[in-house]
Amino acid sequence: MPESQPIEFYFDFSSPYGYLASCQIDRIADRHGRRVLWRPYLMGVAMKVTGRQPLVEQPMIADYTRIDLPRSARRAGVKCTLPDPFPVATVTACRAYYWLLDQDEEKAKSLAQALYVAYFVEGRNIGKPDVVLHVAGALGIDRDTLAAAIQEPAVKARLKEITDNAVARGIFGSPFFIVDGEPFWGNDRLREVDEWLETGGW
Amino acid sequence: MPESQPIEFYFDFSSPYGYLASCQIDRIADRHGRRVLWRPYLMGVAMKVTGRQPLVEQPMIADYTRIDLPRSARRAGVKCTLPDPFPVATVTACRAYYWLLDQDEEKAKSLAQALYVAYFVEGRNIGKPDVVLHVAGALGIDRDTLAAAIQEPAVKARLKEITDNAVARGIFGSPFFIVDGEPFWGNDRLREVDEWLETGGW
Repeated sequence: MPESQPIEFYFDFSSPYGYLASCQIDRIADRHGRRVLWRPYLMGVAMKVTGRQPLVEQPMIADYTRIDLPRSARRAGVKCTLPDPFPVATVTACRAYYWLLDQDEEKAKSLAQALYVAYFVEGRNIGKPDVVLHVAGALGIDRDTLAAAIQEPAVKARLKEITDNAVARGIFGSPFFIVDGEPFWGNDRLREVDEWLETGGW
Repeated sequence: MPESQPIEFYFDFSSPYGYLASCQIDRIADRHGRRVLWRPYLMGVAMKVTGRQPLVEQPMIADYTRIDLPRSARRAGVKCTLPDPFPVATVTACRAYYWLLDQDEEKAKSLAQALYVAYFVEGRNIGKPDVVLHVAGALGIDRDTLAAAIQEPAVKARLKEITDNAVARGIFGSPFFIVDGEPFWGNDRLREVDEWLETGGW
C-alpha cells in the first residue's frame, strides 16, 4: 500500500537548502498522513561520483546562491545565513544522529534540527566534535556517552552503509526525497512533492 | 515603474528545461500584464565559466534527468523527449532568431517555438543549418534570405553581444529569468516567478 510508505528525506548537515527543506518537509508529510525518515548522509561521497563542487565554489553559481539562498529562506519563513567556514565535515553530526536514532527517533530528529540551527542560524561550526557534543548536551543527551558512541565501529559502519546505499540508489543531492519510489531533488521541489502526495502523481 | 518592466527569458535552444519553460512563461506573464523578452543565447559560453557539464554527461545526475525531464514535461502538459544527438550547437538557430527579431518580434518568437518543437518533440537536429532553414521556411520565412542573413557579420556580432552581456550579468543557465532585477534559475522556479509577480516579492 503506497499510501503508508514513509517519505525518505536525504540531506547533508552542511547543505543550506537541506536545512530549508528540513523546516518544511514534516509539515507537508503531515498533511498527507505520512511519516518522514530523516536520513543525513555524506553528500561528499556522491559528489565524487557526480563531479560536482559545492555551490559556493562554482563561479557565477556562487553569486546566484548568495541571492537565492536568503530569498528561499524568506519564502520559507526561516532564518538562514551562509556560515563561515562553509562547507564543513559532517561525519560527527551524522554519527551522533544515527546512534541516537536507534534509541529515540523523535530525539534524533530534534538533534538534527538543533545541529542545523546551530550551523545555519547561529553560525557555530558543527564540523567540530565539541560543538556537536555541546548541541546534544543542550538536549539532555549525556555528553560522555555520546563522545564514546561516535567512536564505536558499529556507529561508523552504520553511517558508511547509509551513505553507500544512498549513492547506490542514485541519491546525490541535498535535499533529496524519495516519495513512493519517485526521486525529487532540491528544496525547490517541495511543492511538487506536496502535489505528488496529494494527487498520487502524474 | 517596475510594474511595466518586461520579463527577460534567457534560454539555450539545446536545453530541454528551457523548452518546458518556453511553453509556460508567456501565460504566466500574461496573468500579470507583463511582456516577455525571449533571449536565446549560447549557454556553452557560460558553462566554460561555471565549469558545468551538460546534465546528461554528469554521472548520477544524468539518470535523474531521465526521470525528471519526462515527469516535468507531464506536469507542464507538454511533449518532450531527449533527442539524439544531444546537445547540439545552436548558433544558427540563435542567429536566425535575432535576425528575425529586428523585423517582427512575434514571428521571431514563433520561430523559437517551432525550433524547440522540431528538436524536443520531432527529434530533428536543429544544430544543422538546413533544418533551421526548413523550420523557418514552414513559417513563411524566405529560405534564401535567411541563409544569407545568418552569415552577416552584424547578425553574428549581435548574438555574441547578447551572450557576452548575459554572462557579464551573471546569467548562466537555461531557463534563466530576470524579473524586476531579480534572477531566477530553472524551470522549477516558474511558480516562484509567478508568486513574485503576484506579490511584488518577499
